[in-house]
Amino acid sequence: MAPIMISGGGVTTPRGFRATGRSVGIKASGRLDLALLVSDAPATAAGVFTTNRAQAAPVIVSREHLATSGGVARAVIANSGCANACTGDEGMRAAHAMATDTAALLSCPVAEVLVASTGVIGVTLPIEKIRAALPAAVASLATDQGPAAAQAIMTTDPFPKEAATEVEIGGGTIRIGGMAKGSGMIEPMMATMLGFITTDAAVPVSLLTRALREAVDDSFNAITVDGECSTNDAVMMLANGASGVTVDDKTYAPFLAGLRAVCLDLALGIVRGGEGATKLVTVHVTGAASSAEARRAAKAIANSPLVKTAIHGGDPNWGRLIAVAGRADVAFELSRAEVTIGTTVLFKDGQPHDEAAPEAAAYLKGTDIVVTVGLGAGDARSTVWTCDLSAEYVRINADYRS
Amino acid sequence: MAPIMISGGGVTTPRGFRATGRSVGIKASGRLDLALLVSDAPATAAGVFTTNRAQAAPVIVSREHLATSGGVARAVIANSGCANACTGDEGMRAAHAMATDTAALLSCPVAEVLVASTGVIGVTLPIEKIRAALPAAVASLATDQGPAAAQAIMTTDPFPKEAATEVEIGGGTIRIGGMAKGSGMIEPMMATMLGFITTDAAVPVSLLTRALREAVDDSFNAITVDGECSTNDAVMMLANGASGVTVDDKTYAPFLAGLRAVCLDLALGIVRGGEGATKLVTVHVTGAASSAEARRAAKAIANSPLVKTAIHGGDPNWGRLIAVAGRADVAFELSRAEVTIGTTVLFKDGQPHDEAAPEAAAYLKGTDIVVTVGLGAGDARSTVWTCDLSAEYVRINADYRS
Repeated sequence: MAPIMISGGGVTTPRGFRATGRSVGIKASGRLDLALLVSDAPATAAGVFTTNRAQAAPVIVSREHLATSGGVARAVIANSGCANACTGDEGMRAAHAMATDTAALLSCPVAEVLVASTGVIGVTLPIEKIRAALPAAVASLATDQGPAAAQAIMTTDPFPKEAATEVEIGGGTIRIGGMAKGSGMIEPMMATMLGFITTDAAVPVSLLTRALREAVDDSFNAITVDGECSTNDAVMMLANGASGVTVDDKTYAPFLAGLRAVCLDLALGIVRGGEGATKLVTVHVTGAASSAEARRAAKAIANSPLVKTAIHGGDPNWGRLIAVAGRADVAFELSRAEVTIGTTVLFKDGQPHDEAAPEAAAYLKGTDIVVTVGLGAGDARSTVWTCDLSAEYVRINADYRS
Repeated sequence: MAPIMISGGGVTTPRGFRATGRSVGIKASGRLDLALLVSDAPATAAGVFTTNRAQAAPVIVSREHLATSGGVARAVIANSGCANACTGDEGMRAAHAMATDTAALLSCPVAEVLVASTGVIGVTLPIEKIRAALPAAVASLATDQGPAAAQAIMTTDPFPKEAATEVEIGGGTIRIGGMAKGSGMIEPMMATMLGFITTDAAVPVSLLTRALREAVDDSFNAITVDGECSTNDAVMMLANGASGVTVDDKTYAPFLAGLRAVCLDLALGIVRGGEGATKLVTVHVTGAASSAEARRAAKAIANSPLVKTAIHGGDPNWGRLIAVAGRADVAFELSRAEVTIGTTVLFKDGQPHDEAAPEAAAYLKGTDIVVTVGLGAGDARSTVWTCDLSAEYVRINADYRS
């Protein structure tokens, strides 16, 4: 049974978590730009982080803290409007200060505070604004402020991303909630843009780490907006045990199913809210020689500017799907390949069916598009989600700083 | 001494070549869509072709013909407006018919005719229109019709690409000329979009093949518009010996220098005329662990939609250059990395110099942009050329077929 999502749920849906979102003046617009997420009790914690070799200061600090604490956390502090990446020694001092000040106000070890930042790269973080605002932020923590926190981590996102579910485990009920941001610079590699997941299950840190990696692989790691992997990508998860239910090997499967559902909901939210996006595009690749090749071909198609612009324009230019599959460095047999847009077969067994193009064009007028490309080389398959490429993407990114 | 380009030169600048460009009704617009290039005498011939596994019918036929003839050709026939790719058995018959009819009219073996097509993928080639037009096309061949041929191979190209140079070799003079097309679906892999090179030197086929590969690697293979490798990419070269000068091992170096100059001129023309392009961007990568890694990082930067949109908007968002270098799967040391836009250093030794951003912003108002990214990991370097990404690219590709 697929997990049922809780409408309006988020990071504070699981018991024992409070959050807040504040405006501290990092964004010139005055919008919310500081999020704080706190577990009432120490929680087991896990994180997956960007594989970009230019890691931002908050990523370095959060990794260190997880290692030092052995996977225990009380809080996550995150700002938007500035990535605190490529900011040298001053950036490292600022990331440490975010954790140190938060830990002092919560009376917990510094290593139990995780840090995240998102926004423009290479600009100095106005750390004094954050430090000055922290006492009031802590005072405003509440169980109903998850939505404010979700807003405070947004940059070019057109809407906040929140999700939560409830899972029956061993006679008890646990909750899993999450929030995420991300709109551009999105093709996470082993991680994602910012994602924060909470659960009130008690989960041993080894099991939590394994579950987070598995869930991320089929959700955040299966999406792409523009093929870009950020310096700040991170998904962090806290499990505080407030439900009184413990996840173990026997109950791992339903827990993972719930976690996957939350992660996928958030990940698809990121794609739907991709910079300039007007359509959610599901790319199925079948007939691949291996799962890895299926994923590689699906990512190549999902990142192709020619495919993405054609879908944006409602143009059933299926030849572009074949052209990308053919250059994706995967086993590919043109004589057995096929392309289906929606349910319309446009190419099969090496022969074109371009006469069906008008039917596909009508389908492409919708906003939820499914394309399937068969490589004709095996039985493996993979699914990746992306969005279309619009002139609005160019507009957003041509003057991001200005 | 760098070769001097001949103003207004092209494929018919070398002695003994004639060309023509005709309108035969493949393009609905009525624009020129059939090019024919003929050497008066049999020429040695070489080609480099797309590595895309979905090879178009004309690519398959031209490869076969070069193998059958042992590297001899009299003519190249090329159409625009239809790629004749993913067109099944009918497409193969059409590509063969283009060669067969041309050979009959020129009284030469079929294997001495090379074939090329460019345009939309998956649409049947109206071969009867080409066959009907061929006799008049052959009759119109002339030494001053190179420009017409260059126009007849254009698709979304905003202008034709022609180049020619003269080289002094062993007391004689030879000429090298070329034409190319390409505007979108441009990131050639071991080949390019369509490029046709002529020379009136006599060049043994083994030397011609080697020279073409070397010249292509530093020109057509070093450009990218949108990271897409076409099903039809091909560069073909004919050497007819009409100058009476033979290239051998001793004179290979100046011959290669001339050929490189012609190829680079054409390749930069393709980038300047990239779909929606407003700026030519030169990406230098230095400090790489190997040449291959330097090229990989340079290609990643040149294909980054975030870098390309920032340059389009004149936004000195140098952090994006670092973010791409960091995810490019190459050795990278943030603490020794650097970014220079024009001559303005914005990041060096791990520290930002964002105060110089206004100076870089002023520079980015120009149309010839040079960016340099140091990886801090070694001494190897590479240069790649690309263009900016504009809303016009999206507009062109959202309704290419309509």
